[in-house]
Amino acid sequence: MSLSHPRILLQFDSDEHASVFDAVVAVDSGVEHLLQYASVEPVDVEGLVHGAMFTRGPDQLKNTAIFVGGSDVGHGERIAECIKETFFGPVKVSVMLDSNGSNTTAAAAVLCARRHLELSQAKALVPGGTGPVGRRVARLLLAQGAQVVITSRDARRAQSACSEILANVPDQYHQHLSAMGVAGETELRSALDGCNLLVSCGAAGAQLVSGSALQASELKVAIDLNAVAPAGIEGISVMDKAVKRGDRIDYGAIGTGGLKMKIHRESIRTLFTSNDLFLDAEQIFAIGLNLEEATELS
Amino acid sequence: MSLSHPRILLQFDSDEHASVFDAVVAVDSGVEHLLQYASVEPVDVEGLVHGAMFTRGPDQLKNTAIFVGGSDVGHGERIAECIKETFFGPVKVSVMLDSNGSNTTAAAAVLCARRHLELSQAKALVPGGTGPVGRRVARLLLAQGAQVVITSRDARRAQSACSEILANVPDQYHQHLSAMGVAGETELRSALDGCNLLVSCGAAGAQLVSGSALQASELKVAIDLNAVAPAGIEGISVMDKAVKRGDRIDYGAIGTGGLKMKIHRESIRTLFTSNDLFLDAEQIFAIGLNLEEATELS
Amino acid sequence: MSLSHPRILLQFDSDEHASVFDAVVAVDSGVEHLLQYASVEPVDVEGLVHGAMFTRGPDQLKNTAIFVGGSDVGHGERIAECIKETFFGPVKVSVMLDSNGSNTTAAAAVLCARRHLELSQAKALVPGGTGPVGRRVARLLLAQGAQVVITSRDARRAQSACSEILANVPDQYHQHLSAMGVAGETELRSALDGCNLLVSCGAAGAQLVSGSALQASELKVAIDLNAVAPAGIEGISVMDKAVKRGDRIDYGAIGTGGLKMKIHRESIRTLFTSNDLFLDAEQIFAIGLNLEEATELS
Repeated sequence: MSLSHPRILLQFDSDEHASVFDAVVAVDSGVEHLLQYASVEPVDVEGLVHGAMFTRGPDQLKNTAIFVGGSDVGHGERIAECIKETFFGPVKVSVMLDSNGSNTTAAAAVLCARRHLELSQAKALVPGGTGPVGRRVARLLLAQGAQVVITSRDARRAQSACSEILANVPDQYHQHLSAMGVAGETELRSALDGCNLLVSCGAAGAQLVSGSALQASELKVAIDLNAVAPAGIEGISVMDKAVKRGDRIDYGAIGTGGLKMKIHRESIRTLFTSNDLFLDAEQIFAIGLNLEEATELS
Repeated sequence: MSLSHPRILLQFDSDEHASVFDAVVAVDSGVEHLLQYASVEPVDVEGLVHGAMFTRGPDQLKNTAIFVGGSDVGHGERIAECIKETFFGPVKVSVMLDSNGSNTTAAAAVLCARRHLELSQAKALVPGGTGPVGRRVARLLLAQGAQVVITSRDARRAQSACSEILANVPDQYHQHLSAMGVAGETELRSALDGCNLLVSCGAAGAQLVSGSALQASELKVAIDLNAVAPAGIEGISVMDKAVKRGDRIDYGAIGTGGLKMKIHRESIRTLFTSNDLFLDAEQIFAIGLNLEEATELS
Repeated sequence: MSLSHPRILLQFDSDEHASVFDAVVAVDSGVEHLLQYASVEPVDVEGLVHGAMFTRGPDQLKNTAIFVGGSDVGHGERIAECIKETFFGPVKVSVMLDSNGSNTTAAAAVLCARRHLELSQAKALVPGGTGPVGRRVARLLLAQGAQVVITSRDARRAQSACSEILANVPDQYHQHLSAMGVAGETELRSALDGCNLLVSCGAAGAQLVSGSALQASELKVAIDLNAVAPAGIEGISVMDKAVKRGDRIDYGAIGTGGLKMKIHRESIRTLFTSNDLFLDAEQIFAIGLNLEEATELS
């Protein structure tokens, strides 16, 4: 009996219908059999993952992988933890976490900034830094040596997000993170003071940064990850892709989308190179960084 | 990174389990990745369709398409409307509507009639013309220039189906449609008077036309689309395929089924030739007409 | 129009999420399109199976098949019956029943025993012989001419399982089966007296046979199909694969797993050789026997 071991991706999605977006990207990344699982709850994980662990030999486990997605990032994080707890020893498969596109979006935003700024010299303001994308943007910037200020309307919420962010950041950079409550224009201008990078990560349709504050700033790069009008940063269009406005380079959500898609596809491909990868924000950023460096060399 | 863009079909089904029938036909028509979505409600459509719109570039959007199916034709029509509303500008994918096989069945029936009659000369009686298949049969016949009488036991229901039928028919043919209530043999014989075509489209297992009325008629073609005994037209078998009985040619549901399957498969293939098709009854009929003409030439 | 007919497997699963295990094995056995259906109830079967029956021509029906799985073996048996009732005449597709791995597990266990014993000379004790795997082990052993004693803590339950087992066994062997209630060590030792084969089929995590009873026995082969600690047979490890202990050869659940997987894959492949197979315990055992004989010859 000759055996084949096509590339199988298990799509574990928290929503009632598994994401079409994630499915199409998987197919375009070379997945040969996509198995979609919707409404996946923590209690379901062990049985499903055992089926991935115990069906192929050690040499072939790399051809099975799991993608965790769906609109609820917190839910996806819990599912990913359950997956890791199910594995034992070398009997595991590779996993990518990208609920609501949070990791690929954050990685693309930081890599767009890197095109114009030395990140270790950056001082970044991250409005909406308490949300799932914002926390990841902060993690990635900190790990590159940047100074980061996360803001929220609620100062206590901003403070409490810090510990979660720092859990994923090397100790040497912990002093680089601070948190501020920003309720109005005055506080916003104060927060922006001295910043050269702005990455707005607020909820869809909420303006976090006014055009006047933007104008008054000394920003070199401004990135708005909100794709639904009104813009998170007044005056930035979703289509902006390295648009020069005075001394500032602007990106909108769709402007970072091309890189996000490339990172997403390359991450799916990477899953099938080994059976022991866990692709969270840092690993997905590293994959994107390789893509950027390959582009720079070519 | 070389990219592949296999043909992906999204199956949006109104039922709890997506149709196996539609799935197998999709696979046999060259779909490389079938993504089945069951229990799809109008509220789900936007998110799912965005995933189809925003994952592939303009040149490759034609390799993603949507099939709307399931047993509830009205539900499928609503889903199809929601899909169209989600598209904007050229950012769209091709869509085929064939809930409960309604469009492929109607197209096959009218094309079977066309093998034996000049449709612009036809005078057709369509019992059960208020149902989803009957309304489509009437639409297609009218657009070919035929005279059409739809009947129902309930005269008012027949009348109210007319406006829905005419919404899809060129103005010049609107006078060709009439509606009648038919409760018994006398009314039925009167309705059949002068007709050369009969297409019975009633609900499964209900006899709409008696054998005596059939014998008394001057019909050239009689088609019964009911596949469940008793026959919709007494004396016609589901297996009848151009069976000659006196001056009349008869078709049963299975007798039109081979052509229906060909039309279904060719419609799926056609979806992947462009990203902007919407295949409803008229477009599916046109695809079937091309198949018939190609067969006639060969 | 050239038509392709890829190998389609319909996975009918009783659970809320269709088994990943069964899905991966299907893909590795050459299934080209796997259509997963979860939460399949008897009432759903007819519509789904009609879609398999009426989409491909007689020559191509063998490229569509159905796998019945899920954790509930009784449910799977009912689904399989509904499938058989839906077929008519030659219009059918091949079906494999392996809910909870019951058939492939039982076949592998009996074939492991056959490597060391002439089964027609075997006298087998089957603790847990009232459960779905135990009943199948008993069926298969009886059909090979073995003497079989099934035991349960509840003597009446053991008795009532006999009729179900014998329904699938040739009449000539019906006298070879007996049932006993075994509540303690004394009864167990008495049951083991004269046995040369032990196949423990109890529920996960329950010890059915003590180490002292095992030591006192004259068993030639002992197989424990329980994969969850504590072992069903004290002193046997799940990893045991033909481990020699004195005059006895021991197998644990994982030790029989490699052969189980081979049988599962070969059974899936076999489904696509014809459109009229129904693979239950006996047919799956025969497929495994062919594999064993091919290995012995090579």
